[in-house]
Amino acid sequence: MKRRSLGTPSGFRDLLSEDANIKSWLVKTISDVYKKWGFLPIETPLVEFTETLAGEVTDFNLYSVIPSKERQTGSAKSLSLRFDQTVPLARFVVDNMDKIALPFKRYVYGPVFRGETAQIERGRYRQFDQLDVDIVGSSNIASDIEILLCMRDTMRSVLGDDSFIIRTNTRKLLNCLPVLFNFSEANLRAVLIELDKRDKVTAESLISSLTGAGLKSTDAEKLAEFGSISGKPIDVLEKIKNICGNLPEAAEAISDLEITANTLVSCNATEIMFDMSIIRGLGYYTGMVFETNLVNAPQFGSVYSGGRYDGLVASFGVQPLPAVGSSVGVDRLIAALQSMNFKIPGEAKKAIVLIQDSVVIDYAFQVADKVRSLGITCEVYTGGKKKLGDQFAYADKLNYDFTIVVGPNEMQNGTVNIKNQKTKVQETMVLSEINFI
Amino acid sequence: MKRRSLGTPSGFRDLLSEDANIKSWLVKTISDVYKKWGFLPIETPLVEFTETLAGEVTDFNLYSVIPSKERQTGSAKSLSLRFDQTVPLARFVVDNMDKIALPFKRYVYGPVFRGETAQIERGRYRQFDQLDVDIVGSSNIASDIEILLCMRDTMRSVLGDDSFIIRTNTRKLLNCLPVLFNFSEANLRAVLIELDKRDKVTAESLISSLTGAGLKSTDAEKLAEFGSISGKPIDVLEKIKNICGNLPEAAEAISDLEITANTLVSCNATEIMFDMSIIRGLGYYTGMVFETNLVNAPQFGSVYSGGRYDGLVASFGVQPLPAVGSSVGVDRLIAALQSMNFKIPGEAKKAIVLIQDSVVIDYAFQVADKVRSLGITCEVYTGGKKKLGDQFAYADKLNYDFTIVVGPNEMQNGTVNIKNQKTKVQETMVLSEINFI
Repeated sequence: MKRRSLGTPSGFRDLLSEDANIKSWLVKTISDVYKKWGFLPIETPLVEFTETLAGEVTDFNLYSVIPSKERQTGSAKSLSLRFDQTVPLARFVVDNMDKIALPFKRYVYGPVFRGETAQIERGRYRQFDQLDVDIVGSSNIASDIEILLCMRDTMRSVLGDDSFIIRTNTRKLLNCLPVLFNFSEANLRAVLIELDKRDKVTAESLISSLTGAGLKSTDAEKLAEFGSISGKPIDVLEKIKNICGNLPEAAEAISDLEITANTLVSCNATEIMFDMSIIRGLGYYTGMVFETNLVNAPQFGSVYSGGRYDGLVASFGVQPLPAVGSSVGVDRLIAALQSMNFKIPGEAKKAIVLIQDSVVIDYAFQVADKVRSLGITCEVYTGGKKKLGDQFAYADKLNYDFTIVVGPNEMQNGTVNIKNQKTKVQETMVLSEINFI
Repeated sequence: MKRRSLGTPSGFRDLLSEDANIKSWLVKTISDVYKKWGFLPIETPLVEFTETLAGEVTDFNLYSVIPSKERQTGSAKSLSLRFDQTVPLARFVVDNMDKIALPFKRYVYGPVFRGETAQIERGRYRQFDQLDVDIVGSSNIASDIEILLCMRDTMRSVLGDDSFIIRTNTRKLLNCLPVLFNFSEANLRAVLIELDKRDKVTAESLISSLTGAGLKSTDAEKLAEFGSISGKPIDVLEKIKNICGNLPEAAEAISDLEITANTLVSCNATEIMFDMSIIRGLGYYTGMVFETNLVNAPQFGSVYSGGRYDGLVASFGVQPLPAVGSSVGVDRLIAALQSMNFKIPGEAKKAIVLIQDSVVIDYAFQVADKVRSLGITCEVYTGGKKKLGDQFAYADKLNYDFTIVVGPNEMQNGTVNIKNQKTKVQETMVLSEINFI
């Protein structure tokens, strides 16, 4: 028998129960919110044609996938693992246009793959999960607002309180920066890259790099000040209106921000701010952009980000379909929650039936059935003829709340010995009247 | 802008909302049962070292995975997509031995990949999902029974009734066939392959192929008869005892079957049968084997199968760790349920807010917030300035139960117009007193 390899490849990892438990709770909690907002689940395969993935928007390193049968011939079309959920969404919409209703509102959960160097200490893996929510087929600001308010509802459901801040901005306004601050359209990308660093550098350093990107120093100062505008949507809107005046290029951005601000007030969404320093690195955003930070774990950065990307579906060569969406960084959110000692709310109590003698196996299973019928998680100790001491050690290692010892006497009398592992209180009960305190 | 590929590669597919919805319900329902039985979730990566996967038990075609960065050098260790969840479990247990308690009870959900020719019409895809439950580290029959009873609880939770049959047998008994029916040990594999076909061939044809595999014709007749033994565990046990007498080689098998039969009676598990024709094709089973059929969709074959495999973990070159488990064929079960017109129980009612005029967007979101607070799924129509007729068509296409039209008058009066799309009953209500019938 050949001895096999151990360990996982670099950038790929096992999830032990504690992490897997919090992840499945998180995915369920968030999916339930998405469902309640009328989003529908879909799935796309993990493997796509390389041509589908390799568009102009990606500089991620793809993983090639080669089926054994086709390895020799090399005739088959090249396949790769997906690197995100957004490009497959665009492909899905075009492929299934006759089966969906527009606007198409979907959520999706699953792994994506990046063939980059793994940086485990920074939480950067080659396989990680994305949980995305998107609306395809509407350029109406109502769909941006739907995503924004749904993000707020999601974070509330996860945290159980309001200890988060969602910050939003619009690329439509950022696109007016050359007109507003007198620099060349060609320098916009470089300016945005500098502005994006605002949080990490001094005001002087920002102004100096903005002049380096082609701004006069007075304009650079003004732009740095503009980048620091942040706060309640209604207040920020007033400031923006003052800066933009009646500039025709800014009219659409201001209208979007105004409808959004009014709706946020209507829905009492005090966790959502306008923030002119929100840029989002990726090139494909065209309208609103979103980021989410945890008040009690700001060091993890944004755990839930997105925006409007109106050009992506058109890159499949069919009609343009505007889209807006947001993605939960599942692994980063888990890491942030764990740094806050987060506990899954309302987890069921757990009991284990320990077996004094193997002749009572059938009784042990009968007891476990009864316990589960009371809504309590229960397993029978299946490790065989171990001493009771070993069985108690197993129960402790798995953090069981109750142990239930059964032996021949209990079987004959139809009773059980229940012990509360936390209080150490022990009690003998008739099986039919079993209860837990 | 380069035009991208459309379509999915052969054997890979998109799941539309209806299928994805039933799948997520199924996975949640089954995972909840596993949890309640004390099984813990884990995750393993989709990519493993090829050496890990390519052991003696597999003849599945692997998919190679090659990261772009390493394509030139060829120096890295070969990687592949996993073809099942069981080999990764064995690798996981060995790698994480210091972090887990034995017996280790886990469940896992996720896709596996087979580089074989896809047969879409027979539901055979290259990527499909497995939802596995296993116990590693105990050879005690209690762990086989735990899996068996948990399978029963799972099927009950999925179907809501007892319209399924779980059939079980033990390889330990099948290993006695050469002694019981006078043929060479070397022919056992061939004999089992013939016996496995019992359901699909006539008695004559079975007897003739058994003689072809080395049995005398009277023994072949007896073995064919043995293969047809099936029914209530206690009854089958009596028959087996008569056939085996005091044969020492069969003692362990009979003891296992006896403890199992007694426990099934204790737990009133009338859906579980003993059936001597259950073999399970795969070579690695060593003890109990399980199959599950739906009473109302028998043509789909077993939707939930497994057994004891005591040799697998040892193939990693460490101590032998006995194991037993079962796997839900998620995609096959979904297909079977859909053939029975299965409906997800207790799905929430759904409402949609339609917008008469875009000046009322903020009010529309306020209404939706209120509706969701009543536990009803609700979206705001985000498609922009479409006529009400188009918005109603969208609501019908997505099968909404209620439509709520809001316009400037409703906003001013703080009212809503709710229409029950099934009964066509329409009503105007004050927002704060909104309710659904």
